[in-house]
Amino acid sequence: MRYTRVSVDGRAMWGRVGEEDIELLSGSPLDGEPTAVGTVPQATARWLPVVVPPVFYAVGMNYRRHIEHAGAEMPTRPEVGYRANNALTGHGSPIVKPREVEGRFEAEPELVAVIGRTVRRASYDEARKCVFGWTIGNDVSARTWQHQDRTFWRSKNSDTFKPMGPWIETDVDALAQTTTLRVNGEFRAAFPTGDMVFDPFAYIVEMTKHLTLHPGDVLWMGAEATCRIDPGDTVDVEISGIGVLSNPVQLEGNQ
Amino acid sequence: MRYTRVSVDGRAMWGRVGEEDIELLSGSPLDGEPTAVGTVPQATARWLPVVVPPVFYAVGMNYRRHIEHAGAEMPTRPEVGYRANNALTGHGSPIVKPREVEGRFEAEPELVAVIGRTVRRASYDEARKCVFGWTIGNDVSARTWQHQDRTFWRSKNSDTFKPMGPWIETDVDALAQTTTLRVNGEFRAAFPTGDMVFDPFAYIVEMTKHLTLHPGDVLWMGAEATCRIDPGDTVDVEISGIGVLSNPVQLEGNQ
Repeated sequence: MRYTRVSVDGRAMWGRVGEEDIELLSGSPLDGEPTAVGTVPQATARWLPVVVPPVFYAVGMNYRRHIEHAGAEMPTRPEVGYRANNALTGHGSPIVKPREVEGRFEAEPELVAVIGRTVRRASYDEARKCVFGWTIGNDVSARTWQHQDRTFWRSKNSDTFKPMGPWIETDVDALAQTTTLRVNGEFRAAFPTGDMVFDPFAYIVEMTKHLTLHPGDVLWMGAEATCRIDPGDTVDVEISGIGVLSNPVQLEGNQ
Repeated sequence: MRYTRVSVDGRAMWGRVGEEDIELLSGSPLDGEPTAVGTVPQATARWLPVVVPPVFYAVGMNYRRHIEHAGAEMPTRPEVGYRANNALTGHGSPIVKPREVEGRFEAEPELVAVIGRTVRRASYDEARKCVFGWTIGNDVSARTWQHQDRTFWRSKNSDTFKPMGPWIETDVDALAQTTTLRVNGEFRAAFPTGDMVFDPFAYIVEMTKHLTLHPGDVLWMGAEATCRIDPGDTVDVEISGIGVLSNPVQLEGNQ
């Protein structure tokens, strides 16, 4: 099943994604069994970030080849960081590049686990079961700010820097897929989703030793490859078995 | 006016705090003008974190004497970080020290700004106006983890490490107050709230160059002093003109 959120008359609504339409729902599938209350065509839908998480977790260095390429040390245990909800935007909405950004402005294609249950001290098996489904994230990054600042506050969390969507896929073997990055339809990079140092379930086991995960929390799993993006481009992140997250890039003030 | 949130029959409700009672409200004062729907006595109330923020911002090094004491460089511009909602707990609820924590386990008393309006590219004057009110935070920290880990995920964001309350005070000159830290009623430290390198409004001006603040977002302003806390203790953070945030400390498994 594929779930998403769309804006209908300025109101955020959950939906179930079909072939051409989105069936609007009475509530969140994370809270129970919502009923159908209407339909909108996908072609004209305004897609929202698939969920607004209570906590927005993100993994840094986690793909082997990325770590080797960066000359960084291989992590010996799962350690998680954070991103911020203000930066979220939906499938189809613009990534706005601030005028002050200099240097490399890049896309990072990521697999995202969406948590469906409240869980603490999860076993590996419980960690598998607490994932409601999978979506796609683009961890847009301004590298000069990333290196200048003490935190990732503006390098990775400026408004619109975190596209997430287009939907949550509940039926997919997420670690046996391929992530593909394209700019204006042209291939930039591809890598196996599963080539991680620690998989999402290992992260959940470690994290929930000390913290409670809640329904709607998201865990972005890092990227093996990145690519440059510029105003005027459209950047697509595809994960086979899930879908394609596509966003135009605009220069601030040109929206 | 003082606003808070309490648990009533397992449900989170907003309230207006009076002398001895809390007047329960029909909704959030951040969304409009809620009406009174009942009353509970303060003495038996179960206090919740005063708000669950869309984004939980936290300032690191910001008090002059703390920075000098740490031998750190004086910041030249406001840079903000993040904490996580899973760690929030209310006034009166226990801070649970994990069994795995070794070394210094400390309280950090902080002034907290609660945002009341959606704001982007705020002027200093707009920054002043977008603050709905002020509350108190205790940025509980496990120092060994803080130094061992790449992020603050478990050192500062384990469950219960972020008490916030007891209420939001809307009528106070928050930067002209005194923050006092006590353990079991004994004085540990005190400092002027306003002795900051950058005040909350300067942070908001800088932050909103790149991000949108939303109603309910919180900005924790850092601490000048810290102190050790141990299971069995009760730690109080008082800010004159606001109130006292008090929490017992328990060893995990002894709750």
